Amino acid sequence: MYKKPIGIFDSGVGGLTVFKEIRKRFPFEDIIYFGDTARVPYGSKSRKTVIEYSIQNARFLIQQGAKIIVVACNTSSATALTQLQKLLPVPVLGVIEPGALSAVKTSSNKRIGVIGTEGTIRSQAYSSAISKLDKDCDVFSKACPLFVPLAEEGWESHEVTQLTIKEYLTSFLKHGIDTLVLGCTHYPILKTSIQKFVGNKITLVDSSEAVTDKLNEILPNRENKVTGQDWFYVSDNEEKFNLIASKILNMKIDKLIKVKLGEGWFLN
Amino acid sequence: MYKKPIGIFDSGVGGLTVFKEIRKRFPFEDIIYFGDTARVPYGSKSRKTVIEYSIQNARFLIQQGAKIIVVACNTSSATALTQLQKLLPVPVLGVIEPGALSAVKTSSNKRIGVIGTEGTIRSQAYSSAISKLDKDCDVFSKACPLFVPLAEEGWESHEVTQLTIKEYLTSFLKHGIDTLVLGCTHYPILKTSIQKFVGNKITLVDSSEAVTDKLNEILPNRENKVTGQDWFYVSDNEEKFNLIASKILNMKIDKLIKVKLGEGWFLN
Repeated sequence: MYKKPIGIFDSGVGGLTVFKEIRKRFPFEDIIYFGDTARVPYGSKSRKTVIEYSIQNARFLIQQGAKIIVVACNTSSATALTQLQKLLPVPVLGVIEPGALSAVKTSSNKRIGVIGTEGTIRSQAYSSAISKLDKDCDVFSKACPLFVPLAEEGWESHEVTQLTIKEYLTSFLKHGIDTLVLGCTHYPILKTSIQKFVGNKITLVDSSEAVTDKLNEILPNRENKVTGQDWFYVSDNEEKFNLIASKILNMKIDKLIKVKLGEGWFLN
Repeated sequence: MYKKPIGIFDSGVGGLTVFKEIRKRFPFEDIIYFGDTARVPYGSKSRKTVIEYSIQNARFLIQQGAKIIVVACNTSSATALTQLQKLLPVPVLGVIEPGALSAVKTSSNKRIGVIGTEGTIRSQAYSSAISKLDKDCDVFSKACPLFVPLAEEGWESHEVTQLTIKEYLTSFLKHGIDTLVLGCTHYPILKTSIQKFVGNKITLVDSSEAVTDKLNEILPNRENKVTGQDWFYVSDNEEKFNLIASKILNMKIDKLIKVKLGEGWFLN
């Protein structure tokens, strides 16, 4: 089991924030990353479609030998996790439950905000997960659809981004939250600008850190003489992926392979 | 031939600006619209993927009886038109050539600007088409990736949109253009804000109007006693499509049908 890689998938490049955290904490593990750049974004797609895509992505990682699947995409985690866990022969971790746990631990006044894509917010996955952990918590949610394209445009601290944050969050902050879950893998890219707007009294919860804590429980990080290897797969547009990846990871990706959807036999 | 519908496809909802213009000018024709909302946006995808998707979309319209295909999507028109014309048994119209012709007719100083998605701008389709019509024209191009998500968010005249327009176009306007082609079907949604920023000395060219002129040459608009019917098909998320559609068309769409990708036999 130890030699097989950790598999991570996301709707696109945003999940590299999760990859980065896992790579940092598991230096000896091999990691495979799949970004479905041909079909990004997932956040505005229907439940059924997101489930179908998520299953295809996870199966691809298992074909490549993944011993565990991390669903970096919040929309997929919110929508498809149960189905993935039912269908797949390896453990599957989503980002929602770890993020919810981290939020509950962080909040003192039990007023928690969650921002994410339309799909994630519509699913109410964070609200349900937080309520299960602590039924006294009040959860306030807000979809912020423009944060993904702004992050992809590389406008992390641009005036337009600041104004968009203001537009989405001004009235939202009246709920008096002390904790804000960044419920989309792209949002940590805008973390500095969001923190600046909400102020230091609100703690931001980054689910990439939370899911890595969870992974650490399942997969003890044993030492090894050999540093882990990385493989990156995308379904389209390698150049653009590499451009944004180099900003998130501060490195160029050498082994970036494009895959294609095709027919195959699968157990249902 | 007369009773068969006009087929229009787009990567999503933006092509309804083209539908609207064609419906207005051809009140007696039946029209089928297909929006590939499961795979939108096309502008950031690779050439090969856009060609593959465009062929699937056009074939679907032909299966529904379309006698002519209008490629409303600028990215598809810029990338896949030649292949579509080669493969399909009916005439195929793109928006690039009509838009280029309209721009050349409009410009007095022969300095023309083109804005569009990354895919459209990278293809240089407008520059080539304009140069073919008038080799003395100078063409200046600029990709504006955030305009699509801003239009989809419904922020046509929002401060964030105005600031984004300013960011993309300020230094671009130093080229001294007198004509600006809106090279993406979503951009007419932002027309008022763009016109406000560039001022009245610059004429905006909307390719939905240009392609309808072209259609009029091919398809004489004969009178009929029966008003034309509309059919709308999408590949995902009917609710969101209907929401934006009602803004563009000022009406709710009754006959909105979701289609699914599957296997089939096709001549190559």
